[in-house]
Amino acid sequence: MSSIEHEIRRGAYYDSVVLMQLQRSLLELEGVEDAGVVMATAANLELLDDSGLLVGGLEPRPEDLLIVVKAGSETMAAHAIGQIDSILNRRRSAAASAYRPRSLDSAVKDLPEAAWVLISIPGRYAASVTRQALSHNKHVFLYSDNVSLEEEIELKTQARERGLLVMGPDCGTAIINGIGFGFANHVRRGAIGLVGASGTGLQAISSSIHGLGQGISHAIGTGGRDLKHGVNAITARQGLELLAHDPDTKVIVVVSKPPDPAVAASLLTTARQTGKPTVINFIGYAPPVSEFENLIFANTLLETAGKAVQALVGGVKPDPNQPHVQGQVKPGFLRGLFSGGTLAIEAVRGLQAFLGPIHTNLSVPGGLVLEDPLVSKGHTILDLGEDIFTVGRLHPMIDNDLRLRRMEQESSAEEVALILLDVVLGEGSHPDPASELGPAIEHIRQRGVEVGVLLIGTDEDPQDMVAQRSRLESAGAKVVTDTISLVAYAVALLGDSTEQDQPAISTTALAAPVAAINIGLESFYDSLLSQGAASIQVDWRPPAGGNERLIGILSRIKSSQQAGDQDEPVKKG
Amino acid sequence: MSSIEHEIRRGAYYDSVVLMQLQRSLLELEGVEDAGVVMATAANLELLDDSGLLVGGLEPRPEDLLIVVKAGSETMAAHAIGQIDSILNRRRSAAASAYRPRSLDSAVKDLPEAAWVLISIPGRYAASVTRQALSHNKHVFLYSDNVSLEEEIELKTQARERGLLVMGPDCGTAIINGIGFGFANHVRRGAIGLVGASGTGLQAISSSIHGLGQGISHAIGTGGRDLKHGVNAITARQGLELLAHDPDTKVIVVVSKPPDPAVAASLLTTARQTGKPTVINFIGYAPPVSEFENLIFANTLLETAGKAVQALVGGVKPDPNQPHVQGQVKPGFLRGLFSGGTLAIEAVRGLQAFLGPIHTNLSVPGGLVLEDPLVSKGHTILDLGEDIFTVGRLHPMIDNDLRLRRMEQESSAEEVALILLDVVLGEGSHPDPASELGPAIEHIRQRGVEVGVLLIGTDEDPQDMVAQRSRLESAGAKVVTDTISLVAYAVALLGDSTEQDQPAISTTALAAPVAAINIGLESFYDSLLSQGAASIQVDWRPPAGGNERLIGILSRIKSSQQAGDQDEPVKKG
Repeated sequence: MSSIEHEIRRGAYYDSVVLMQLQRSLLELEGVEDAGVVMATAANLELLDDSGLLVGGLEPRPEDLLIVVKAGSETMAAHAIGQIDSILNRRRSAAASAYRPRSLDSAVKDLPEAAWVLISIPGRYAASVTRQALSHNKHVFLYSDNVSLEEEIELKTQARERGLLVMGPDCGTAIINGIGFGFANHVRRGAIGLVGASGTGLQAISSSIHGLGQGISHAIGTGGRDLKHGVNAITARQGLELLAHDPDTKVIVVVSKPPDPAVAASLLTTARQTGKPTVINFIGYAPPVSEFENLIFANTLLETAGKAVQALVGGVKPDPNQPHVQGQVKPGFLRGLFSGGTLAIEAVRGLQAFLGPIHTNLSVPGGLVLEDPLVSKGHTILDLGEDIFTVGRLHPMIDNDLRLRRMEQESSAEEVALILLDVVLGEGSHPDPASELGPAIEHIRQRGVEVGVLLIGTDEDPQDMVAQRSRLESAGAKVVTDTISLVAYAVALLGDSTEQDQPAISTTALAAPVAAINIGLESFYDSLLSQGAASIQVDWRPPAGGNERLIGILSRIKSSQQAGDQDEPVKKG
Repeated sequence: MSSIEHEIRRGAYYDSVVLMQLQRSLLELEGVEDAGVVMATAANLELLDDSGLLVGGLEPRPEDLLIVVKAGSETMAAHAIGQIDSILNRRRSAAASAYRPRSLDSAVKDLPEAAWVLISIPGRYAASVTRQALSHNKHVFLYSDNVSLEEEIELKTQARERGLLVMGPDCGTAIINGIGFGFANHVRRGAIGLVGASGTGLQAISSSIHGLGQGISHAIGTGGRDLKHGVNAITARQGLELLAHDPDTKVIVVVSKPPDPAVAASLLTTARQTGKPTVINFIGYAPPVSEFENLIFANTLLETAGKAVQALVGGVKPDPNQPHVQGQVKPGFLRGLFSGGTLAIEAVRGLQAFLGPIHTNLSVPGGLVLEDPLVSKGHTILDLGEDIFTVGRLHPMIDNDLRLRRMEQESSAEEVALILLDVVLGEGSHPDPASELGPAIEHIRQRGVEVGVLLIGTDEDPQDMVAQRSRLESAGAKVVTDTISLVAYAVALLGDSTEQDQPAISTTALAAPVAAINIGLESFYDSLLSQGAASIQVDWRPPAGGNERLIGILSRIKSSQQAGDQDEPVKKG
């Protein structure tokens, strides 16, 4: 009959590696059948329960360490529990053989060339140590998770003001100048630079690029929440700017977990401005188009790698969407008056990808639903064929009356710079739409408002497509024959007005050989050394042994003095 | 000084064409500056107001006809209003010159070979006439909008039981055997068949296919709501079945406004079963992959046409995803235990596209959020690297303990048929994951549960990728190196269990020369004749002149007798 024994250590801090090793050591003891060594969170208690290791009547707090041993007999279990301290001491004396700085301040003095600090301590301490690193003007690779969104925003904002990167929190991977941080595959160096709000996304893509015979210049992780509302892609935009200026990077890849739509639009503008072929994989995002200017959209991680390699090997292709925009357009909003619902949806999707949210009377993911379809707001796209407009009235493909009135109304508003229309030819449609729309377009153009027309039809349609086109063009409209070209025309007119207020970020950190201070998981330090980087491991311990109340008191004392540690660090690398 | 006069006609029914013509005729009268002839809905009143045509103090009901004239003087305006009846009479006597059947029953007797009925009368009468057409065993092209979703479901369900199509409501376009219904472009006949819950989507794609030198076999419209929950793509699935059996159709295109995710998954299963190359454009849908078996996903209307032509001209490509599945798998659910969040998201997206909703602890559009990540349900994909699992615990890429326990737990459940894992190699990760996962996989396989492993890494990674792969394979796992191949493996094992209960639909309607009865917009009748189809126009009037109360009484009388009209129709074609 098995027996279970346990021990609770109140508020004790141990490195996760130590906990794993303690559990393994316990499992190796005679008679031990199973063991659990965990922080006593609700989830961990439930997991112990699933393994049949939960003892009834326990009431540990989440910050307590819980050790449970299941053994063949009560004696064996008790014996195993009794071994805990000697196992921990053995481990401690092994670690003590090398002398190490116990604070970041000391480590910085010892390895002054370090431009990077890797932080992988428990989340509740991570923000404070990151702040310290930023105050030393170091870029931070922040592996720690369980850091709040508010802290992330604060840290990244602070970093941006100093021209520094905070990759993370919960950043699993990066490759800087050939050196992998955290989890990183061995890939050859090359001309493809990556920015990723997705750790395994970066790993899978960089591995595939390597498998396809090409290599990586740098891979900049941002943490999985970088493209959320609030964070606003601070790190991803810094990463894009770095790669845009990095002479070794010829092709860029951006991969992210599902982004906030407005953040995605703003990041796509930054990506367009890099001028380098940029493959985008916003996982779960419906690309409005497969290629747009220098942007190439991919659906899967494997395809992302493939398209990046193709862009590199095949060279930059001429841009098929680039419209000719002549002269100056007045700043303002666009108003689209469509007769075709699907054409309107495709237009909304394309426009919102590059201009941000679009008001519409259609149900489009990410679109802003107009309260009153009779009153436009900001950028608006309307489907005038919707049910509300067609009660006792012919469809706008047959009858232009409603559209002509709305064109007049929209173009007379001061804030309107561009009117977009579709004209659908074919059986059943108006026999000569250009004869009615043409004069209205001329009138609008005289007001200084641009007009773009999407013309759908064939050379065999009864309306004579060539004549329709020529009548619309002579009225002053830009005529295209697919929605994405219409979107490209609108984006070229209105899309680059928002100035990027990105402060300059130096590319020197990317160019220099990597030197990095590691705080937390020692395996990351070992990994840096094995890759040939200069590194130093900080023998970090939580203040006051992890006691939350004492930490509060200490931090108040610390902020009123300004002492640095003076111990002697060991330098390697 | 302009003057405005109006007239209200209570509960009067007029064809939309008549209203448009009346408005135009009024505008041509001397001194008339503007005119509005509309059904007095709230939206139409607001539109009149925007045009400065709304007279204060009016209280028409939505079913009333409102006529407003703005003229240079009160006399001129009053004179114009006085002309209304003579304008309407002129129009009526022109129409009366041809004798026409006044009911569908008569038209059916007159053109018995008609397999199709086109209906474009006001929405409130449309369902009843559609029911009549179905009772005559006719396929219906239902252009009318303002038909309720409940009626749509009822009509389509009834039609499916009889092996008939209801294209619509709000179906703008179709091309059957070379004849366009409603709005349709003149395109050459060819080998590409279309199914579309999107009128202008079908028009734009068929026009582009024509522009690319190819042609259309048939284009089957379904109405924009066909892929909504409730309607469940009844018509789209019938359309796919028709095109699958149609010998002239070599490539299929499916285009739809944003679909319900579960309906999309079920329609994709039908599309896979056609066996023909099928280009999918679910507008606004994020394709999990660019190609999957015979399915090809497109992002834009133009690209949809391009890919269809490519599939036709280039022939069917061998399927890169098709995994080798040997033997029989027990029916059941899959459980994915991932260490990489992005890999898990990509897996959820791929699996939900083909298997339907997936339970997960990740935030994925369309995914079902697990209440308790410690308890799986149905098909479940877990990211074990999520914050809740990593408090005081190493990441699952370093420490397999949590995953091994969960593998044991999941595979012991009777309903589980397949376990999916990722194994991410590289710096920082576990030095030999296969040594720990291998024995667990062997154990699972002995229980009759299949195991698929997604292995991410490079030939230069410290773990020796070849050795890892071989250890995992010899334990009995299927090992792949990208997420979509893992998805394809899972779909091949579990994806085709749901039998399609689609009743047979005869393709004879597609093969025969088109003969159609038109009820509603006369321009559609003219269009049918001009295209060489046999057609007959029904001189339809609403029962009881559109009076709602009388209609109710009449329909109760009608259902108790069974009278057919006996007037003599005119046959053309």
